[in-house]
Order: sequence, then structure tokens, then C-alpha cells
Amino acid sequence: MAFNPDFLSIGEAFVNHYYSTFDVNDPNARVQGLCGLYDPENSYMTFEGVQVKGRDLILQKFSNLTFREIKRAITKTDCQPLPDGSILVNVLGQLKTDEDPINSYTQLFILRPNAGSFYISNEIFRLVLHDN
Amino acid sequence: MAFNPDFLSIGEAFVNHYYSTFDVNDPNARVQGLCGLYDPENSYMTFEGVQVKGRDLILQKFSNLTFREIKRAITKTDCQPLPDGSILVNVLGQLKTDEDPINSYTQLFILRPNAGSFYISNEIFRLVLHDN
Repeated sequence: MAFNPDFLSIGEAFVNHYYSTFDVNDPNARVQGLCGLYDPENSYMTFEGVQVKGRDLILQKFSNLTFREIKRAITKTDCQPLPDGSILVNVLGQLKTDEDPINSYTQLFILRPNAGSFYISNEIFRLVLHDN
Repeated sequence: MAFNPDFLSIGEAFVNHYYSTFDVNDPNARVQGLCGLYDPENSYMTFEGVQVKGRDLILQKFSNLTFREIKRAITKTDCQPLPDGSILVNVLGQLKTDEDPINSYTQLFILRPNAGSFYISNEIFRLVLHDN
């Protein structure tokens, strides 16, 4: 049992870093920026119900997103420590891509310590839509 | 590294069990039913931004909820395995308490293996509201 006492500041700093890296118009820049955040084998990502595992498949998923522009407003960020030193981060926000309407979304991350830093071991993204 | 291969079925069974236990009208029955799901010391719960730790404080939070009746519809459940054998569960749904309007919500759980079963090591609940 080794809860990280800095879970809140680390989680909030991560969220700022992640979205400032993600919310760029160039898909290649996005993928290059996010590359170092995932483990080659042991990162899970579920995006609107589609689950992929490992850095390459996760980045491929992101590079296939078709929007040109994304705007985002974060409403709430909740963070908790995990017994193994990982940090759980849960985001509620709103986003708008291109000319689409504004959508609420939730996105959660587990940041797992590794060699003095963290990688994203788990990530789940969902738009708040109940009709599909 | 020991990912639980049954993470999906365990996660979905947990969600059914949790909500059938939670969604009762009697607060005492709710607390009694949920009691065995939390660790006395090592469970974290964040409810609308208020974080508590340990079984007693979590159950106290639930027993203080003032609604008399709750109706719920689950839209999506996403599950992922964690490297230590835990299971991450993320729920998107809608709920209605008493005469309040229907609200979207997200709730996530981490189920941590312990003595042949699981306890909730982490839980985060958020209504999807952007104006408060």
C-alpha cells in the first residue's frame, strides 16, 4: 500500500498537459505529442466502446479521428490515489469539433508510475449520449 | 502483470449487483447491502467532488442522501483490466430521484481482488451538470 500523496496536483497537471497536446489541429503533431504517454504493451484505451491495447493501436485510433478543429471546456476533474501508487483521474467536460454541436463527455485515466514518471495504463472516453 | 481475463463479465455483474443494492427506498437497507463492498480503510469515494475514505465514511455519505425514490437507466458500461488484477468499470447512465428532473451521470469503480472476491477500492460519482 503506497498511496501517492500528490495525486491531486499530479492528476490536474496531467489533464492540462494531455489536452494541450491532444487539442491540436495536426493529427501528426497530436500523435507525436501523445506517444510518450502510453506503454507499448500495457496501455488500455476504450473510445466510445471500442477497446484497443498497446501504444501503436491507441495512436492509430487517435490519428484516424476526422475532425479538423476541437474546442474543449473542462467542468470537473476528480483525482484519487490507488494502492499501488497509480493515480485515477476522472474528467467531465464539454467539447465541440468543427461544426458539430457541443457535447458533454467523460474521460478517465489511470496514471501508473514508471521509472520516475507516469504512463497511461487505462483510459476510457465517452460522449454523454443516450440515444445510440 | 496479471490482467484478469474475465474483467468484462465481472464488471457487468458487479454493476447489476451494485445498483440493485443501491436503488432501494430504505437507506438502512442500502447501507447494509453495500457494507461488504468497501474496505474499512482503503476505499476512496468521491461523490460530487466530496472525497471520503474508508467504509464508515462512505456509508455515512450514502445514508445521508435524502431522496426517497430513485429510478435509473444505464446507457453504457465500459470495463478494463488493471495490471494488478483489479477491474476498472465506468458507467454512463441517467437517474431520477423523487420529483427531480432526469439527470445524466457517470460513475466509475475500481474493483480490487481480495480473498477470492473483490472490494471497491475507488469510486467516483458525477452528475453531468456544467452550471455549478
